[in-house]
Amino acid sequence: MNLLDFADYAGTFAFAVSGTLSASEKKLDLFGASFIGFITAVGGGTMRDLLMGNTPVTWVKNVDYFLLIFSAIIFTFIFFKRVIKLKHTLFLFDTIGIGVFTIIGIDKALIYDLSAPICMVMGLSSAVVGGVIRDTLCNDVPLIFHKEIYATACIVGGTIYLLLDFFNVNLYFSQIATITSIIIIRLLAVKYNLSLPKVTFAQK
Amino acid sequence: MNLLDFADYAGTFAFAVSGTLSASEKKLDLFGASFIGFITAVGGGTMRDLLMGNTPVTWVKNVDYFLLIFSAIIFTFIFFKRVIKLKHTLFLFDTIGIGVFTIIGIDKALIYDLSAPICMVMGLSSAVVGGVIRDTLCNDVPLIFHKEIYATACIVGGTIYLLLDFFNVNLYFSQIATITSIIIIRLLAVKYNLSLPKVTFAQK
Amino acid sequence: MNLLDFADYAGTFAFAVSGTLSASEKKLDLFGASFIGFITAVGGGTMRDLLMGNTPVTWVKNVDYFLLIFSAIIFTFIFFKRVIKLKHTLFLFDTIGIGVFTIIGIDKALIYDLSAPICMVMGLSSAVVGGVIRDTLCNDVPLIFHKEIYATACIVGGTIYLLLDFFNVNLYFSQIATITSIIIIRLLAVKYNLSLPKVTFAQK
Repeated sequence: MNLLDFADYAGTFAFAVSGTLSASEKKLDLFGASFIGFITAVGGGTMRDLLMGNTPVTWVKNVDYFLLIFSAIIFTFIFFKRVIKLKHTLFLFDTIGIGVFTIIGIDKALIYDLSAPICMVMGLSSAVVGGVIRDTLCNDVPLIFHKEIYATACIVGGTIYLLLDFFNVNLYFSQIATITSIIIIRLLAVKYNLSLPKVTFAQK
Repeated sequence: MNLLDFADYAGTFAFAVSGTLSASEKKLDLFGASFIGFITAVGGGTMRDLLMGNTPVTWVKNVDYFLLIFSAIIFTFIFFKRVIKLKHTLFLFDTIGIGVFTIIGIDKALIYDLSAPICMVMGLSSAVVGGVIRDTLCNDVPLIFHKEIYATACIVGGTIYLLLDFFNVNLYFSQIATITSIIIIRLLAVKYNLSLPKVTFAQK
Repeated sequence: MNLLDFADYAGTFAFAVSGTLSASEKKLDLFGASFIGFITAVGGGTMRDLLMGNTPVTWVKNVDYFLLIFSAIIFTFIFFKRVIKLKHTLFLFDTIGIGVFTIIGIDKALIYDLSAPICMVMGLSSAVVGGVIRDTLCNDVPLIFHKEIYATACIVGGTIYLLLDFFNVNLYFSQIATITSIIIIRLLAVKYNLSLPKVTFAQK
C-alpha cells in the first residue's frame, strides 16, 4: 500500500467519524448517524464518479471502503468520549483527507483527459461534496459556504498540483507539495481565524 | 404479472400517494406536491441505478412507472378525503413497498455481482432514499434518521434475503420470508412505539 | 453559432447570475456564492444527463460552460450594483433560459428514443432542477414548489413542442413557438400574480 492509498483510507476514516459525530447534535438515532457518517465519507467521490460516468462508483465496486467506514462508525459509537478528545488528531486526518481527495479527484479527471478547470472541479468535488450533503441532510446551510478557508485550501492545492503536472514534475514530489500546502493553508486559516469575504450585495 | 411485480407497483403507488400527502403540510402548490410525490416514488430506485451505472434509470426506460405515479398523484388530489381515511391501507402498501424495494435493490445488485454488504446498501437505498429526498426538499431532517424502526426492518429483511440466497433457498420462499419479516418488524415497531437509541454523545 | 446555442448560453449566464445573487441573502462567502451560482446553472442539465446515462455530463465534457459560468459569477461580484438594476433584463434572460433548457432537454430525450411523458420530464428537469438544488442548499423549500407559474410554463411549452414534433412541423418554427409560449405564460403569470392552487388537504 503506497502513501496515497494510506492517506485515502485515513481521510475516509476521518470523514466517517466526523459525519457520525456531527449527526449527534441533531438527535439522530443510530441509523441516522450511520447514514450521515457513510454519506459524508463517500459523497464527494460518488459525485465525482457520477459526473464523469465512472460507474459503478468506486465504493460500490470496492467493498473495502464500506468495511472501513462501517468500522469508523462502530468505533465512534463505542469510543465516543475518547474520539471527542482526539479532535486534534481527527482534524489532522480530516485535513489530510481533503488534500488526498483533491489529488485523487484530479488524477481520475486527468485519466478521462478533461480540461484543467474541470479537473479542478473534480478535485474539489471529491473533497467538499460529502460535507455539503451531510449539512444539507442535517438541515443546515453547508458550513463551507460561509465559514473557514476549506475549499480555498483545496483550490490552491489543486492549482499547484495541476501546474506541477503540467511541467512534468516528479509525481511523489507533486503529491507531497500539494497535500502540504493544503494542510498549511488550513492550519493557518484556523489558527488566525481567516475566512473569505461574505457576499452581501443584494438588498432585494 | 408475478407477485413481485404487483408488489412493486403497489409500493410505488403508495410511495407516490404518501409523498403527495406529505407535501400538503408544507403549503406546496399542485406542481410542488406532484414533484414531491414523484420523487418519493422514484428516488430510491434512481439512486440505486445511478450508483451501479444502470442507466437510463428504470423509470426513464419504462414509462409504466411514470403513468402509475401520475395516476397516484391525480388520485390523491381527487379523492384526498377518502385517501386520508385509507391510512391503514396506505401504511400497509407502504410497508409492502419497502419490503419489495429492498428485494428488488438486492436482486439488481446481485446481477452486477456486487459483494454482500454492497447488495444490502443497494436494497436499503431503493427502500429509503426516496423518503430522505422528500424530507430534505420539504426542509425537514429526514424522518427515518430519528424516528421509527424503518431502515432497521429493511436491514433485517435484507440480511434474511441474502442468507437465504447464499444457501440457495427457493426464490419465492425467500421473497415471502423477507417481505413478511419486514412487515412484522415494522408493525411491531409502530404498535409498541419502538425506536433506535438516539445518538447524543457530542457536547461540542 | 445558431439561435438555440445563443439562447442556451444566455440562459446559462442568467441562471449563474441569479444563483450567485440569491446566495448573497444567506450571508455566504465568495466560495459559497460561486458554488450556488455554478450549481444553479448546471444542476438541471446534470440531472437530465445522469438520469439518461449521458456521461460525462455536458459541462464536464465541454469546458465552455464552466468558463461562461465562471465569467458570470465574476461579473456578478464586480458589477453587483448594476446587475441588481438589470433585473428586468435578467428576468428576461432567465425566462428565455427555461424555455431553451426545456427544448434542449426534450431534444436530448428524443435522441434516446424515450416516450413522450419522459421527454417532458427531461425537459422540465433541465429547466427547473438547478433552482430546486439552489434553494435546497440554501435551506429553503424550493420556490417553484409554492410560488409562481414557472414549471407550468415549461409543461405547456414542452407539450406544444412535442405536439409540433409529432406532426413534423418545421424545427425552427417549433422552437420559436415553444420559447414564445413559455415567455408569454410566465410574463402573464408574473404580471397578474397568477399561481397554482395550493394543496392543503391533509389535517393529520
